[in-house]
Order: sequence, then structure tokens, then C-alpha cells
Amino acid sequence: MLGIGVLGCGRIGAMHATNIAAHPRARVAAVYDINPDAARAVSLATGAPVMASAASVLAAPDVDAVLIATATDTHADLLEQAIAAGKPVLCEKPIDLSLERVDRCAAAIAGTTLPVQIGFVRRFDPGHRAVCAAVRDGTLGTLYQVIITSRDPGLPPAAYLARSGGILRDMTIHDFDMARFILDEEPTEVFATGSRLVAPALMETLGDHDTLTVVMKTASGRQAVLINAREAAYGYDQRVEAFGSRGMAVSENRRPHHMVLSGADFTDHAAPLLNFFIERYREAFDAEIDAFVDAVENGRPVAVGYNDGRQALVLAEAALKSLHEGRMVRVSEIG
Amino acid sequence: MLGIGVLGCGRIGAMHATNIAAHPRARVAAVYDINPDAARAVSLATGAPVMASAASVLAAPDVDAVLIATATDTHADLLEQAIAAGKPVLCEKPIDLSLERVDRCAAAIAGTTLPVQIGFVRRFDPGHRAVCAAVRDGTLGTLYQVIITSRDPGLPPAAYLARSGGILRDMTIHDFDMARFILDEEPTEVFATGSRLVAPALMETLGDHDTLTVVMKTASGRQAVLINAREAAYGYDQRVEAFGSRGMAVSENRRPHHMVLSGADFTDHAAPLLNFFIERYREAFDAEIDAFVDAVENGRPVAVGYNDGRQALVLAEAALKSLHEGRMVRVSEIG
Amino acid sequence: MLGIGVLGCGRIGAMHATNIAAHPRARVAAVYDINPDAARAVSLATGAPVMASAASVLAAPDVDAVLIATATDTHADLLEQAIAAGKPVLCEKPIDLSLERVDRCAAAIAGTTLPVQIGFVRRFDPGHRAVCAAVRDGTLGTLYQVIITSRDPGLPPAAYLARSGGILRDMTIHDFDMARFILDEEPTEVFATGSRLVAPALMETLGDHDTLTVVMKTASGRQAVLINAREAAYGYDQRVEAFGSRGMAVSENRRPHHMVLSGADFTDHAAPLLNFFIERYREAFDAEIDAFVDAVENGRPVAVGYNDGRQALVLAEAALKSLHEGRMVRVSEIG
Amino acid sequence: MLGIGVLGCGRIGAMHATNIAAHPRARVAAVYDINPDAARAVSLATGAPVMASAASVLAAPDVDAVLIATATDTHADLLEQAIAAGKPVLCEKPIDLSLERVDRCAAAIAGTTLPVQIGFVRRFDPGHRAVCAAVRDGTLGTLYQVIITSRDPGLPPAAYLARSGGILRDMTIHDFDMARFILDEEPTEVFATGSRLVAPALMETLGDHDTLTVVMKTASGRQAVLINAREAAYGYDQRVEAFGSRGMAVSENRRPHHMVLSGADFTDHAAPLLNFFIERYREAFDAEIDAFVDAVENGRPVAVGYNDGRQALVLAEAALKSLHEGRMVRVSEIG
Repeated sequence: MLGIGVLGCGRIGAMHATNIAAHPRARVAAVYDINPDAARAVSLATGAPVMASAASVLAAPDVDAVLIATATDTHADLLEQAIAAGKPVLCEKPIDLSLERVDRCAAAIAGTTLPVQIGFVRRFDPGHRAVCAAVRDGTLGTLYQVIITSRDPGLPPAAYLARSGGILRDMTIHDFDMARFILDEEPTEVFATGSRLVAPALMETLGDHDTLTVVMKTASGRQAVLINAREAAYGYDQRVEAFGSRGMAVSENRRPHHMVLSGADFTDHAAPLLNFFIERYREAFDAEIDAFVDAVENGRPVAVGYNDGRQALVLAEAALKSLHEGRMVRVSEIG
Repeated sequence: MLGIGVLGCGRIGAMHATNIAAHPRARVAAVYDINPDAARAVSLATGAPVMASAASVLAAPDVDAVLIATATDTHADLLEQAIAAGKPVLCEKPIDLSLERVDRCAAAIAGTTLPVQIGFVRRFDPGHRAVCAAVRDGTLGTLYQVIITSRDPGLPPAAYLARSGGILRDMTIHDFDMARFILDEEPTEVFATGSRLVAPALMETLGDHDTLTVVMKTASGRQAVLINAREAAYGYDQRVEAFGSRGMAVSENRRPHHMVLSGADFTDHAAPLLNFFIERYREAFDAEIDAFVDAVENGRPVAVGYNDGRQALVLAEAALKSLHEGRMVRVSEIG
Repeated sequence: MLGIGVLGCGRIGAMHATNIAAHPRARVAAVYDINPDAARAVSLATGAPVMASAASVLAAPDVDAVLIATATDTHADLLEQAIAAGKPVLCEKPIDLSLERVDRCAAAIAGTTLPVQIGFVRRFDPGHRAVCAAVRDGTLGTLYQVIITSRDPGLPPAAYLARSGGILRDMTIHDFDMARFILDEEPTEVFATGSRLVAPALMETLGDHDTLTVVMKTASGRQAVLINAREAAYGYDQRVEAFGSRGMAVSENRRPHHMVLSGADFTDHAAPLLNFFIERYREAFDAEIDAFVDAVENGRPVAVGYNDGRQALVLAEAALKSLHEGRMVRVSEIG
Repeated sequence: MLGIGVLGCGRIGAMHATNIAAHPRARVAAVYDINPDAARAVSLATGAPVMASAASVLAAPDVDAVLIATATDTHADLLEQAIAAGKPVLCEKPIDLSLERVDRCAAAIAGTTLPVQIGFVRRFDPGHRAVCAAVRDGTLGTLYQVIITSRDPGLPPAAYLARSGGILRDMTIHDFDMARFILDEEPTEVFATGSRLVAPALMETLGDHDTLTVVMKTASGRQAVLINAREAAYGYDQRVEAFGSRGMAVSENRRPHHMVLSGADFTDHAAPLLNFFIERYREAFDAEIDAFVDAVENGRPVAVGYNDGRQALVLAEAALKSLHEGRMVRVSEIG
């Protein structure tokens, strides 16, 4: 059994802890949170001891690896400390909101052979994976276009938004990674445009956008379109379409059940979408832990590595520049 | 151009006349209806002359073939007269409500080489045909079960029901024919059970049923299930499922367009079904005329022949007997 | 934490044990199987001690309730012993293949106030439940027809079939229960017909059928159609349709993911169905345990009781009689 | 009966002629084509006389209105001549490939009260119309995003492409119009990027693109994304999605029938898409003629007017500029 120390016991950390506890070859070895109540709740559910500091967790001999699910601005520090302590890391995204900090962290851990997996969970979704497989096994022929629709069910609280780094770094970041996963070739150019339609006054105040379209191109000309909104009345809209010379693969939305209803003025009315990411990506979160356990146990390369975390942020920076300058930005202008 | 005489200019006859007029190799050569206004309306729309009697139509030299769409109890007489006059016939279903009359008509026209096509239009529906093709070309392997769901959008007027011959001869008759079309083997046993749920009092008075299930079996054991109701709130429900050793084919319901709507508490809400048979089976009615024109022009066998009309009625009689006796009835008990 | 003793550690028992272990308010307190290796495997996975006999499990003080997942012919004995020992029971279906034994068991436990839940897991499926809810909350108006399609992905081994009690008691039993669940009124008449199409020689030998249609009616005339096959090339086909005066609700098949593929000669090709019952009814198995824990903890009535187990068997007996006699059988002829 | 003169008897003109002939209140009054054989074929099918020149058609007293379906570079001339001759016009898109010529034509016909309808047929598609209705009747709340996917089944011949004016003016022109139809507000900014993936060498030679993404924004911030490709293995892909504060409406692809097939390793495999525009937009072409007849007969405003034809071209010009300059272009930079 792989003993995993859980740093951060908020909503995401607690969910990961439950999944680790249910994994047949892993267990929660220790937990820590800046809020002792949060840590205690996870301790109760998993039987793992609460520790007084992240450092204690990293030092514990039965902690074989760590999960970092703390506040974003502590990710890079903890990641550096974990590697220094010789522990493999599964780090929630983003590594940091600042590319400069991400690059400093990269320098600090350069040369390590320890697994460092970044938490882009959507790569583990069975439907999205099947799209990726259809690209990579040649089913779709030469890839032409990737369209990713990603709309959240509702606007997060203003306080969250203020600290989020903006829609591009907070929300689109997942789509930048998904685009790289499906495109199978690095984007070299990025265009973005944003609107303030869901909460115009708030977005104006924050200098942020709630409705967004991004277009990217790779060197060979493959196109990716990312379509985002901070609110969707019908729930958590998560679709991925790949189109190539031999066909099209679409990962469709998911619902909690498949009862469809027909009545006097409609037919085949389906249930609302699975809401929110913990439900929608339930299998993906399980598979993410499984992949990490497997990488640590068997010395396999991680499925989503440090550079994947960095590149998504580079694309977000390029998109931000495009959004301000109203032009296609070359990724090489960023980093 | 094949000149077709139209006998009967009610809703169905008028629709056929329009389709004949639009056919590139056919035209309406003459029309007749017991109600002169109905005949005149079709005459105006197609330019064909109104004749004073069915006999005049049958005698007209530029009438190469006739469509019989008059009241059911005149079908057999007109069919006999048409064959006697040397005219190929497309006769609306049923040939007659009485099996005895159907058999007398068969005797009267025995030996004719003129095409006699019976109006089981659903055989020409592109979706249902594709199910049939999947059975016959081996895609489904050995056929096991056929399930036909057929529900009308709303109860017909009491006067219509009183003259209809009952749900089995009026409505299920289409499904008996569809079952024979898909099963590709004659049913040898029939079970039926009916309920009075939509309009209990009226059905009690008429000695009829509004909700019906029929089960049939062929000699090799293939099963067919027919599911009927005289009313469906969501429209005209028309589905055909064939299940065999290698797979399943389902002809799904059809809608006037494919806009789907998602809102605050539902997703992918589709439009009501195409309503009613003239809209739902529009392509099928066109293809039926085309098949008839083709059979007449090229001396090809008709797609749906006299015996198909007779056998559907035999199955309806067997089902009626089953419904009264509460047991599986052998088709050989009927005729 | 409710301590549950697991009797029977085969495929089903082991799955239940895992689900119990993952339940936040339950744990596996002891395990037993006639095959010690099977018991040890579950013990290893859950940490629960292996006991030498079912009696020891029933006697253990930290066993608050028991799950019976042993061979069918031991269910009734163990159920009686468990109630005698004062333990609530969750018993896999069927209670017994013999109605006489079921009735003796009923007599033996008569008067107990301990929860006895029967394992008709499909009642807990979110899609099927949503159909049931649409019937009971009036969304569908007056219920007219229920159509249940239930096809297994592949024929079980001959040895299993020989001990199964026949397709009606082994497989259709689930559909009898589902029909009762959705109909919301007891069937009073049953018709059944079977075929030997999947494995004709084997079925002949066993005196069993592999393809089956059952029609049932309630006193008010509601109809239920059960459509079964022992093999379906495309996987585990599990659909429930309810049709009433105000609309139709259909619980559709489920797939492991929702990627759809379009290529040169097809579109929207979906993944194979979830295969087999452990995957297809995963949420239902979880919910079943949860409902049992809840009933024991809170003294609530069980969701599926002893009489539900008995009535499904009564309907199977009536269907068997119909199958032999080729007629509609009144349920009152059975028991 | 409205007598319509048909100018141009190629594929589109011949189809329109057939539709006019089938219209209950219109007829083909005269036909002309630069190729006499094409004209004769339409004459044979409709009974209308062939005339020696477009001028003769325009001068014929029983020609009440004209359809212009000749080569693109003759549209503006014929349109001016028709208006001068006092005949209402239904003119195939585009009016001209040159905005300057379009504006000269506008000046030439300025002040006319005769109906001039431009052939953006997709506005009449029942599914796309239903999306538009859901925007305009408030069902979707405030509109946020419109996504239009438009992929042709296969690359046209090189000769056609050379004269087409490029993908933006030839193919995307429909999507610019559809976007204006759904957005219900003028786009003020346009971004476009193109790739050469389907036929790289040919596209390089032509200076054209075969794969294209366009992003547009209106003054209030509504976004439209147009996704084009000149080839799709699975057929003619035509989808329109509108997303607003209260929900989403999607006009889905259409197939010739709705038989779905399940087999050993897939389920619900549907038929290929309707191919090509004459089949896919069959109802729309009928409705377009009907709307024109209605406008002429009743003096109603046309559904798609001259300015709609001009604005789509303006957006194409803006997109072309964006494509060359790699930046968001303001529509006001064009005209």
C-alpha cells in the first residue's frame, strides 16, 4: 500500500482523500490543513493522523508520496519541499498563477527523477480519452480541428474570482491542457476575445471576462477553438470534438441518469447535466489517483507532467496578451 | 406518363393525387368521388377531369391504372371491376374488413397478371426499410425478436370507430403487415390482449379496445410483439425494433426538425413527433406511388401484393379470436 | 458504524462486501464462504475476519446485520437462522426457487419486526427510479403500458443454467419485480411464450427457453410487456418504458462513456453498453446497501420486502404455467 | 398563379424550377440558360417555354417575377435589368463577389419598391429557424454565444474553387448570414484564421484555405464562432448552437432516416448525414420559394433582403482582412 500524505483538506483535497482511501493499493498516511477542522474531518473519514504542519507530513516515514491540494499560492513552495524530501508529488493545477514562479520551481526541482504529476483531471475522463485515442490511433485520420466547449453551471463568488487569476488562468487553463492533449502537437499561435455578459458590472470591476472564445493554431495548421462561459443555466457543459480527414469524435455531456421524458409538447427531454466537477469527473478523479499510484509504484512516466502544467499557463499568458492587443499572438512571444 | 385514375378524393385520395401529380412519370388522368365537391377540389389541384362514376374512370382510355381510395366497403367491388377493365390497381388497405369477401375477391381476380398493390405504406418508410434490410442482408444474423410500437396521437371520432372494424382490423392491421415484412417468416401463432383505458365507456359500448398488446410466433420460434394505443400525448409513436444474433436495428420516431433545447431543469428537449401519418410517412407515400408506377411500367412484381393484404387480415382475425378466448391461437385455425 | 456479516463471498458477495466497506456508516464485520479461499480474498480486501461457519457469523456480537449472498438453495435456511438470531437481513434474490419453501420461510419468520430486504437491485437504478417517479408523481397521468426489455450479453454456462430454475425464475424474475415497481398495481393475469433460438439444442435438453415474451395485465387493465433474451451481441440491454395518458418515460441503456464517432459510412456511433450487471447497476448496488443501512439504523420500512420477493416468484410460476398451457393464466391460480 | 421566369438552369436553377412547378400558387413561366440543353431539360420537366435570352424572359408579359440562378458574375447585371423591367427578384447568393459592384447595383435599384429577395436558403431550415425563434422569443434569455459548424462533404473541383472568390466569400458567406440571423445584432468585429489541411498544394496555388475559424463580436459583446472545412468524411455537417442566459438551443444534423444499429462493438450507429445541400435543405428550398411567392403576392417585406446579401459580403471582406493581418478587424473598416 502506497502511503499518501494529503496537504490541503478543502473540497478538492477531501475528495482526493476519499478516493485514495478507496484505492486498493493506496492509503491516506497523514493529513494537514491550515484549518485544523478541515484536517480533522478528513482524518475521521480516512483514519489517517492529522499532522501539525506540511513539513511534518513531508518528514513522516510512512508518507511515500504527497498530494498537494492547498491554496494555489502555496503549490510551488510545497512542491519544491516535497521533492527536496524525496517524495513523489501529485499537485493540483495550477502550479502557480505566475509563469516566473513556475519557472523558478522548475529550476529548483530540475534533475529530479521523482514522479511529479499535475492535476489536469479531465485527461482521465473516459469520453475525452476516447476522443484522444481516436486521434492517436488514426481513426480520425489527419486531425483538422478541435472544439472544446466548457461552461460552468454558475458564477463563483466574487471573492473567489478576485483571487482566481482571471478566467484564462482559472478556467480556460483546463481547456488549454485538453487542447494540447487532443491536438497532439503544440499550439504556436493564440487568439482570444472576451465579453462581459453574465455579470457585466463585476467583470468590469475585476478587469475580467465571463464569456470567452480562444482560437489556437499549431505549426501544421491544426486549429483548436475553446468556448467558455462562467454560467450555463442547464448545468456543467463539457464537450470535446475532434475532426479529422477520416471522421469526427465527440465526447458528449453526461447526466446522472438516462431517463427521457416525452409529453404534450416535447419529446425525449433528458435530465440536467451532472453538476459539478466532482460528480461530472468522478471516474476521472479515480483514474487520476490510479495513474499516480501506478507511476510511483512502477516507475512509469506520469500521464500529465510538470511541463504540461507550465505549457497550459504559457498558453493562458499568450491568450491574455491577445485579448489585450486584439491580435493573434505567437506562443514564442511568451516563454 | 402513366395516367392514373383516382377513385376516392377524401384526405388519403387527395394526398395520393398530389403525389401522383408530382411524380415525374405519372399524372392524374381522371378523378371520381361520391362527393362531387371532393372530386372537384382534386381536379382543380391536378388539372384532371372529374368523371361521373367509377365506371367512367375505369372505362377511360387514358386511364392506364387506378388508385382505389374510396370507403373500405367498396374496395373489393372496385378492385374486381378494375381488373375486369384491364387496369392495374393500387388499393388502399384494407381490401375488406371481411376475410370471406377478401377471398371472394381473390377468386374473382384469380389468374390476372395485372399488378395489384395493397397500400401498406409503412413498408416504404426509409427507416423501417433499413431495419428490414438489416434483417435480410444478414447484418442482424438470425432474427430473434421484432418489437413494433404503434400509437396514434389521438382517439378518432366515435363515428369512425364504429365503422372501423375494431382496433385490430383498423390500426393493428398495419403492424401485422410490418411484422410479416420484418420477420421474413409467416407467424403461425397469435396471442392478443386488450384494455379500455383511453376511453373506457366508449370502448365498452363499441365492444372494442384502445390499448392492445399482440404476441406472435413463427414456426422457427421468432417472436413479434405489437404494442398499440389509440392515443399518445406526445404524438404519433411509430417504432420498429429487430433483434438478432448479431445485433439490433431500431427505426426511431421522427420529428419535423432537430432543434434540441436545454434549460434550467432539463436538457436536449426535442420537438414533438411528426403528426400525423401524412407528415410522418410523407417519403413513404411518395415511394409507394413510385413503386407502383415502376411495377406497372416495367412489369415488375408489386412490393406489397394481394396476399399481403389477405394475410394481415388473417392475423387480425386470429388476434381477435385470441382476445376473446384468452389463449394462443394458431393461424391455421383462421384460414 | 453498522457491522454487517457477509455470508457468501462469490462474485456478488465480494462486490457487496466492497460496497459495504466503502459505505460511510457501515463496515464488514465478518465473512463466511463454503470456499475458504473466497472468504479469505474478501477478508483481505476489507479487513474483516473469516469465520468458520454461517452460524458463527450470526452469533458474533459485532455483527449487527447480515447479507446473504450464498447459493440460492441456502437462502431460506440462512434467512430463518438470521431472524432467529435477531439480525436484520439483506438477502439476494431469489428467496428460493420453490414457492412452497418461500411460504414456509415466511411462516417461520412471521411476526418479526426485523428488517428483511430482498435484493432486487434494479429498483435502485437512478434511471428506472426516475421512470417510477414519473408514474407515481402523476407526470405520466394514468398509466397504460409498461415495456421492459432485458437481454443478457451472453448465455451463462450450461452448469449454471441447469441449476437456475429456468429463465423465468432466474432472469425474468427481475422484470417481474420491475413491472410491479412501475405498474403500481398487482398484475392479475399473465401470458408467456418462449423460444429456443440462441442455443436450441441446450435449451431442448434443459427444457428451458432462451428468448421470451411475457404479457401481464392488472385489474384496471394496465399492461406490462417483458422482453427477454439470454444473449445480445451489443451487450447488456436494460430498458424500461412507461406510457400513460400524459406522456412516456423511458430509462435508456447506459454506456461507459459518451464518445460518439462519425466516419465514412455512419454517424454518432456510440460505445458498447455497460457490461455486465456489476458495472451497469453500480450506483444501484451502492444505493441498495445505503437503503438497507438506513432501514436498520432508522427503523424505516425496507424498500423491497419479503412479499416483493414472493410475488415475483408467484408471477414466474404463473408465467411458467402459461408457457406450458398457451393461455392467459390468472395469478390467483398460483398462490 | 404567379408566373416566374427562371434565369439559369444549372443544378440550382433546375431544382428551383421543380420547386416552383410544385408550388400551389406559382408556375414556371419561361426559362433561359446560356446552355440551351440545360434550358431544354428544365422546359421538358416544367412545360415552360425556352427563351432565347434573359432579356426575352424579362420582357415576357406572363413573367411576373424572376429567379436569378445564373453564374455569379451575371447576378448584379440581371438584377438591375429585372428591376428596370419591373419584375420582383429572387437572386441566388452572392449578389456579386465584389462589394463595389454590390454597392453600384444597390445604387441602380435604389428606391424600388419591388421585392428583392437574396437566396440565403438556410434561414428557412426548420431547425435553424427554431434556434432563431428561441433567441427572439426570449426562451434563451440574453444571448451570449452562437456557434455555427459548417463542413462540406467534399472538396469541389479545382476549376470551381478558382472562380469561387475563396472560402470566405463562397462557403462562409452562408455562415455570416446565419450568424446575423441568430445573433439578432450586427457583428462589429471579426477575426479569422485559415489552414491548408485538406488539399495543401491546391490551396497554396489558389491562395485559399480549406479549414477556417472565424470569431465575431457585436457591440454588446455577443460572440459568434464559425467553424468551416471543405471536406467531412461523414457528410454534410450543418449545426447551429445558440447559448444564452436561460439555456441553449442546438439545430442538429439531419439524416435520411432514423434507423440506428447496434452490433458487437458499437451501439446506436446512425445513418450518414443528408448529402448534399439539395437534400439537406429540401424543406428550406421549398419554404424559400413560398416566402418569395408570399412577398410578391401580398406585398410583404422579403425575409432576406438586399442589405442582408451586402452585409454577409462585408463580413467576408472583414474576415479576409483579418486573415491577412492576423488581428481583429472592425467591420467599420470595410464599408
